[in-house]
Amino acid sequence: MSKKVVTLGEIMLRLSTPDHQRFVQAESFDATYGGGEANVAVSLANYGLDAHFLTKLPDNPLGQSALNHLRRFGVRTDLISRGGSRLGVYFLEHGAAMRPSKVVYDRAHSSIAEANLSDFDLDAAFTDAAWFHFTGITPALGEKAATLTEQVLRKAKEYGVTVSVDLNYRKNLWTPEEAQRVMQPLMDYVDVCIGNEEDAEKTLGLKAGASDVAQGELELSGYQEVCRQLMDTYEFRYVTTSLRESRSASDNGWSALLYDGREFYHSRQYDIHIVDRVGGGDAFASGFIYGLLQAWQPKDALEFGVAASALKHTIPGDLNHAALEDVMALVQGDSSGRVQR
Amino acid sequence: MSKKVVTLGEIMLRLSTPDHQRFVQAESFDATYGGGEANVAVSLANYGLDAHFLTKLPDNPLGQSALNHLRRFGVRTDLISRGGSRLGVYFLEHGAAMRPSKVVYDRAHSSIAEANLSDFDLDAAFTDAAWFHFTGITPALGEKAATLTEQVLRKAKEYGVTVSVDLNYRKNLWTPEEAQRVMQPLMDYVDVCIGNEEDAEKTLGLKAGASDVAQGELELSGYQEVCRQLMDTYEFRYVTTSLRESRSASDNGWSALLYDGREFYHSRQYDIHIVDRVGGGDAFASGFIYGLLQAWQPKDALEFGVAASALKHTIPGDLNHAALEDVMALVQGDSSGRVQR
Amino acid sequence: MSKKVVTLGEIMLRLSTPDHQRFVQAESFDATYGGGEANVAVSLANYGLDAHFLTKLPDNPLGQSALNHLRRFGVRTDLISRGGSRLGVYFLEHGAAMRPSKVVYDRAHSSIAEANLSDFDLDAAFTDAAWFHFTGITPALGEKAATLTEQVLRKAKEYGVTVSVDLNYRKNLWTPEEAQRVMQPLMDYVDVCIGNEEDAEKTLGLKAGASDVAQGELELSGYQEVCRQLMDTYEFRYVTTSLRESRSASDNGWSALLYDGREFYHSRQYDIHIVDRVGGGDAFASGFIYGLLQAWQPKDALEFGVAASALKHTIPGDLNHAALEDVMALVQGDSSGRVQR
Amino acid sequence: MSKKVVTLGEIMLRLSTPDHQRFVQAESFDATYGGGEANVAVSLANYGLDAHFLTKLPDNPLGQSALNHLRRFGVRTDLISRGGSRLGVYFLEHGAAMRPSKVVYDRAHSSIAEANLSDFDLDAAFTDAAWFHFTGITPALGEKAATLTEQVLRKAKEYGVTVSVDLNYRKNLWTPEEAQRVMQPLMDYVDVCIGNEEDAEKTLGLKAGASDVAQGELELSGYQEVCRQLMDTYEFRYVTTSLRESRSASDNGWSALLYDGREFYHSRQYDIHIVDRVGGGDAFASGFIYGLLQAWQPKDALEFGVAASALKHTIPGDLNHAALEDVMALVQGDSSGRVQR
Amino acid sequence: MSKKVVTLGEIMLRLSTPDHQRFVQAESFDATYGGGEANVAVSLANYGLDAHFLTKLPDNPLGQSALNHLRRFGVRTDLISRGGSRLGVYFLEHGAAMRPSKVVYDRAHSSIAEANLSDFDLDAAFTDAAWFHFTGITPALGEKAATLTEQVLRKAKEYGVTVSVDLNYRKNLWTPEEAQRVMQPLMDYVDVCIGNEEDAEKTLGLKAGASDVAQGELELSGYQEVCRQLMDTYEFRYVTTSLRESRSASDNGWSALLYDGREFYHSRQYDIHIVDRVGGGDAFASGFIYGLLQAWQPKDALEFGVAASALKHTIPGDLNHAALEDVMALVQGDSSGRVQR
Amino acid sequence: MSKKVVTLGEIMLRLSTPDHQRFVQAESFDATYGGGEANVAVSLANYGLDAHFLTKLPDNPLGQSALNHLRRFGVRTDLISRGGSRLGVYFLEHGAAMRPSKVVYDRAHSSIAEANLSDFDLDAAFTDAAWFHFTGITPALGEKAATLTEQVLRKAKEYGVTVSVDLNYRKNLWTPEEAQRVMQPLMDYVDVCIGNEEDAEKTLGLKAGASDVAQGELELSGYQEVCRQLMDTYEFRYVTTSLRESRSASDNGWSALLYDGREFYHSRQYDIHIVDRVGGGDAFASGFIYGLLQAWQPKDALEFGVAASALKHTIPGDLNHAALEDVMALVQGDSSGRVQR
Repeated sequence: MSKKVVTLGEIMLRLSTPDHQRFVQAESFDATYGGGEANVAVSLANYGLDAHFLTKLPDNPLGQSALNHLRRFGVRTDLISRGGSRLGVYFLEHGAAMRPSKVVYDRAHSSIAEANLSDFDLDAAFTDAAWFHFTGITPALGEKAATLTEQVLRKAKEYGVTVSVDLNYRKNLWTPEEAQRVMQPLMDYVDVCIGNEEDAEKTLGLKAGASDVAQGELELSGYQEVCRQLMDTYEFRYVTTSLRESRSASDNGWSALLYDGREFYHSRQYDIHIVDRVGGGDAFASGFIYGLLQAWQPKDALEFGVAASALKHTIPGDLNHAALEDVMALVQGDSSGRVQR
Repeated sequence: MSKKVVTLGEIMLRLSTPDHQRFVQAESFDATYGGGEANVAVSLANYGLDAHFLTKLPDNPLGQSALNHLRRFGVRTDLISRGGSRLGVYFLEHGAAMRPSKVVYDRAHSSIAEANLSDFDLDAAFTDAAWFHFTGITPALGEKAATLTEQVLRKAKEYGVTVSVDLNYRKNLWTPEEAQRVMQPLMDYVDVCIGNEEDAEKTLGLKAGASDVAQGELELSGYQEVCRQLMDTYEFRYVTTSLRESRSASDNGWSALLYDGREFYHSRQYDIHIVDRVGGGDAFASGFIYGLLQAWQPKDALEFGVAASALKHTIPGDLNHAALEDVMALVQGDSSGRVQR
Repeated sequence: MSKKVVTLGEIMLRLSTPDHQRFVQAESFDATYGGGEANVAVSLANYGLDAHFLTKLPDNPLGQSALNHLRRFGVRTDLISRGGSRLGVYFLEHGAAMRPSKVVYDRAHSSIAEANLSDFDLDAAFTDAAWFHFTGITPALGEKAATLTEQVLRKAKEYGVTVSVDLNYRKNLWTPEEAQRVMQPLMDYVDVCIGNEEDAEKTLGLKAGASDVAQGELELSGYQEVCRQLMDTYEFRYVTTSLRESRSASDNGWSALLYDGREFYHSRQYDIHIVDRVGGGDAFASGFIYGLLQAWQPKDALEFGVAASALKHTIPGDLNHAALEDVMALVQGDSSGRVQR
Repeated sequence: MSKKVVTLGEIMLRLSTPDHQRFVQAESFDATYGGGEANVAVSLANYGLDAHFLTKLPDNPLGQSALNHLRRFGVRTDLISRGGSRLGVYFLEHGAAMRPSKVVYDRAHSSIAEANLSDFDLDAAFTDAAWFHFTGITPALGEKAATLTEQVLRKAKEYGVTVSVDLNYRKNLWTPEEAQRVMQPLMDYVDVCIGNEEDAEKTLGLKAGASDVAQGELELSGYQEVCRQLMDTYEFRYVTTSLRESRSASDNGWSALLYDGREFYHSRQYDIHIVDRVGGGDAFASGFIYGLLQAWQPKDALEFGVAASALKHTIPGDLNHAALEDVMALVQGDSSGRVQR
Repeated sequence: MSKKVVTLGEIMLRLSTPDHQRFVQAESFDATYGGGEANVAVSLANYGLDAHFLTKLPDNPLGQSALNHLRRFGVRTDLISRGGSRLGVYFLEHGAAMRPSKVVYDRAHSSIAEANLSDFDLDAAFTDAAWFHFTGITPALGEKAATLTEQVLRKAKEYGVTVSVDLNYRKNLWTPEEAQRVMQPLMDYVDVCIGNEEDAEKTLGLKAGASDVAQGELELSGYQEVCRQLMDTYEFRYVTTSLRESRSASDNGWSALLYDGREFYHSRQYDIHIVDRVGGGDAFASGFIYGLLQAWQPKDALEFGVAASALKHTIPGDLNHAALEDVMALVQGDSSGRVQR
Repeated sequence: MSKKVVTLGEIMLRLSTPDHQRFVQAESFDATYGGGEANVAVSLANYGLDAHFLTKLPDNPLGQSALNHLRRFGVRTDLISRGGSRLGVYFLEHGAAMRPSKVVYDRAHSSIAEANLSDFDLDAAFTDAAWFHFTGITPALGEKAATLTEQVLRKAKEYGVTVSVDLNYRKNLWTPEEAQRVMQPLMDYVDVCIGNEEDAEKTLGLKAGASDVAQGELELSGYQEVCRQLMDTYEFRYVTTSLRESRSASDNGWSALLYDGREFYHSRQYDIHIVDRVGGGDAFASGFIYGLLQAWQPKDALEFGVAASALKHTIPGDLNHAALEDVMALVQGDSSGRVQR
């Protein structure tokens, strides 16, 4: 039977402008649903795992639509609580070339941000579970959500579940100081720590010597130093960092770095032409988690995660609809993009 | 020079499902902007008046888009304040036949709901103004908005501006008890009172003897009785009630009743096939206001308002884009719908 | 082999607003191509005849697209001349209920309006031709077009081709006085005269006693009187008038009256719910012509034309895509609209 | 815990032309998924039952999409077999007024049409199941499907499951003779028989005295006679017939007749303005089944089914997305279509 | 008069997901029509030749739409037979970057796959014809289609028509063994042989020494060797191979190699940014054929074909809508992409 | 208070094919409005200036829509005259890679082309104005428009307004000879001269030694020479030339050259991936004007203009919706395109 994975977080209605329009031009929005941990759950379900998502959704048609979206793509929704004020929304404007994509969050007062421990049946959630994943976004939703996250983590550990975190710093949700105050203690529950270039500094206060990330240049040694600090400070089994070279809103370099406390492994680097960047980090995290759950070599898990994420960048929406065989083909080296017929 | 009119209220992003889809089917939303008093301002600008809208909009691209929408259709936006938390949103599912249209409001914590008197330059607003219009929706947004409404009304009266209200009861914003507590005192500022069949009861506690409105039957005498009560209780110059016979979500009968304290006037009744019902009441109110501002006979103003509203029902979106000459042609009797070429 | 029919006229790019939008709301236009005589050619090709269209189109991609549209639906385009200034355009706003549809013409200076006799190979056109059809729109395009029409008619008669006209008065192209000056002499070439209620008066100066057409009431006797006058004045074989009761932009009554100089025949009347009204008259004309070309009883041709036209009203665009068997089924009485599967 | 229901049949990709276009106009198709028994499963899941769908889907992205569609709307898909040649497709052209909707089937050689008993785990399917539903479409798919249907029915009876059938005659799948040969023996397994006006005659050879259904007139006594014959011939607990008056493709009358062997019950009749007719019968069947499973009075179940079906006609696609409370509100008499906000 | 060309094959309904969606995301499909030999016929008609397409289409609206599509773009459809079971369909998902485009064929049992010689009037087809073109796809449709192809080729040769083939191996239609058994004998009828890198090996068993094509590297000498083998084995006048460097699904290098038995000619290489790859090979073939029919130098024909194909990659759909002057401008060196106004 | 700027010219309805379609494929057009001087007015309003647009628009819904579009984006429309024959239209086909974008103009006989001085209140226009901008397109519309331009320029100078011109040669509006005859005398009114590589030669007869521009190669010295000639010939304060390297329709290099009579300044060069090229020059002009109006160093104004224009190329439509802060961020060096959230 396939392994059971649980993730906790917020799923939002995503409203994006079509055809590279700016917000002030939009007369319609494409609608889909997404959020860091929900995206991970969908990817893992897509690879065949028994993926459950813990959240709270309002008892209205929008909440139902978010739930249906998860269900459509194979996520188990039995543990989702219904009620509260509203579904969080985020508005997305796709950039191009030197024009960055823009996100306007409208997620305050969402049902999950105001949820309590009593909304969830955590025993049902963690019975037979192999893995729990969360991100730094969930505790950033507010004091109640931070408390909830800690309570869920404690429960996960009681059940002996492996825990991963994607640090995911969001500057419009909290300050680095707030983030560090909340996140540092949570790291004690974590086995696998995933981040991108700036997360460790903002979320945990560990500073890379890397220079100006906005310039699109990568300095590997700086990231290695941060990984070492993370390993020294916390009892992680693995630390991994995705490495994005943002050449423009349309073209990025994309790879990842893995550290197991002894050795570093730097994955293959992909040159990606971007259809939709959002969810790229979640695709990486879920690919890496999937590989570890399959008991692959960590570096194979890393390559799988990086390839999965590269494919995600070519797919519209938050979710990674690349199938297992799609990712495997890319890992095995076919990036020619020839028509499959 | 054209007359200056000021309205106060909330403009929301309206997100509606296309092609009669239910919410759970939607993969995109048509986006436009609307709200009772904004709709009235657009209609009056469209007829050539100098229409100003008082509101507060967030300082983000969505707030800007709402402002641009008003500007596009001729409303003066100089008095709009920028800042606050968010733009209110409402989701709309168009019904058909026996399936009612459905609105999901997501408007709590909007910038205007949390605005203060100090956000606005009311002296600039009311200098040279001839008319001020508000609806029962604005004070229903919360205590701050109710206080603001009262303050604005007081200022309007200081400047000797004629005041109209559309009672517009919204059951998901407040209870009848709350509505009556807030609205009754505001009526002292009002010269022209506009409502639909159920507003007077819910908002002011004045009860029609009319039977089951949901059945789509109209009993004129009951509405006359309510009009008389309104006139007896408050010092209105005119009371008018739109009369909708909801035969189905697609087909309605539509007329209005006017009372000047002496005589009743029941307008022509239209059988309308509905393209978009939302904003029908606002189109009526603005037509009626326009007629009074032109110093037409009240019953001519009423007929103009009813015809304008009938046309609105055939136009998608909240706004009434029927031009002055379109309404006049219908008032003068041409409802044949022949192609104009 | 199927009979050869020739029509002469203008085909325009038609740009219509989607989803009942008014022009001021449109951010896109649906594009198709149409025009009275082109529509007739398509219908006749659709019924299996060898239909040719005579026009002049600009030598640019828009002219090519118009030609392709004709070709797509089976019209022979070999006789079309290329060159001139521009393709005529018309903008269409679909009405609903009491809001009429609106057409904004932008057709001045089109290639066909400025074409000469030398642009066409009329001998090729009329060799083996059985029928020629034109409408009152073509000579209304200007002096050159009026002259061209007369020259083509003369040629048609030289070849012994039967000639039909759809009077089709267009008030924004000319005045009744201009129309009568040009059209009256052309009637000498005509065998079959087709019109609607107001055409005879405006185009030929023959006045029905019928009262206010805009009111949607039909007075048959008045139309009969006009038919008699037409027969008395000109040497037509048949006169037919479509009778539209415009109850609203959405719902019309639709029938037709035939006069052969001896007897009147009033067709079955259809209650039509309108998807797209434009081209309804052309669908009627082509159905009637088709029936006569099949040597059916004139009243059977009339019933075919009326049924074809009723179906056209349910089809978006100018063209009637109802197949022969669709029309026959309706003529034979099945208007139940049951799903065909 | 909610009751378990199983249905068996084909789900197809449905490709429909947008905006009332005819097939020859279409440059895009709206895509959804549907089929009689799948539609019933979705409705029952939507009402809260534990609905399972038995079918076979090709192991390609189209098969996956059909499965996801079911999952999205709450149907349990664990019992679905994967493999075979292809997903059946049907093309749909929406009619209007006197133009009927048109279906072009492209469903031959579909995976389910060529499936075997060994493709399914029927013990898992029927363990704890309360109800099994199938339609006359499934055995019409071919000899293999007919055999499969009989085998599944036998298994259902072994497990003591209540069985309903919707006779659903499809003339392009088989002849009345073929239908009767296959369907008559299957009736021995059936407890509840559902049909429309013509099904009993075509499928079971039992002929109503009712006259010309295409004329849109209903003769109740004829249908009663057929119900009696059905009851006399087979050991049904209930027989019910939906009664459609096809006034046009846009407007229908809609009601149903119930017979329990003793009394007839004729439901309320609805005048429906049609958005999408397909799936109307399935909505009726599932509403009726739901009521019986709730142990309501049969006539209450009937009213629920008829109201559910009336609502379905206002919803695009094959599926009935009317929620339990939507149907209940209509049953309880509110068909005014007032905006719900 | 323009030269007559005949092609034989299948035209399918092509249903592609919009906006780079994966199949599992699609809620609509863009619809067009295409197929190797149909695409060639359209290109040649577009350049002004008298292009005829031989196929069989079902006698339903989908078959009619396919025929209309050909007609729209100038192909002569008189020789098309109507009848049979169905129109073949192919589903297309556009890739991007390292995600390949994906085709799901649903073309079994199509009318042309089951057609007989007696369905066609080959004497009419080949009278006055200058050229006949087919591809390896047609005989791959099944035994009947392979037989038909051989019969048509024999007839073409009787009429002295020049014959070209595009080898076009399709791995999901047949195995290399089947392909070689059928295709090798057909080469005796062929004058001009067109292929891409892998066709010769799979279809004719002639193996290039070129290494891993999927890696996007080109080894010219290997292709030259294959060309020589082709020339040695069969009596071709020209052999040509398109050379695609698949760097990704978005960016390809594109050139071609020509061999006339004496000399090799390698065309200019284009760096193409792909809008739609499908039909690129057909655009090359038709450009090359066009050049030869104009009696240009073979290398000029080759450059024309390569440029035409480069342009095709920028046009959505299967068809090459680049006009003669567009291709000529590119051949003559202007690839700057400056706006033409 | 913000500075007042006036521009004079034509705004057209722009109809563009969606999704890279060629004209012959289009079944719909995206509609927006634009034109050189209107685009400049919108950009300047967007940066916060008091921007007025002088034009004449037809008194129909299309003219109104153009006006509304200006109003929506903050342009003051009080000075616009209404009347005349028609709104100019231009059709746009977006190119890709080596396929150039194509414009079909349909602008003859537009209201502004036939406007007179008496249509405008120039005293109102130039009172308190700081800047006037026009382009070489307006006088190219015809003799009347050339005369009008000269009259407006004279008036601007009377009011002491700074004048800028964008030379903007349009080869389908006039010949170089005509252009030079009209434009040369107008240069006497000009303070700031803006052009691209070929404008000076075609419009003013001053020839760069630069070689083949279509090849996408830039020779800076040639452009410097032209700038010197311009400065020598006319009394400009600044001359600036945008420098486009058209590598393909999708990718361009983009920079600009400034000359103040003493020194040259060559801006940073951007590699741009094009979403929509149209209006790129206008975005440059307005950015440069904005900078000068802010009394920035000319080279800072130039960098601002070039960055603004680079951003414009990523935005669909004619208008530059990049906000002041967007441009400043790019000027300050962040072109990484990282998601802003």
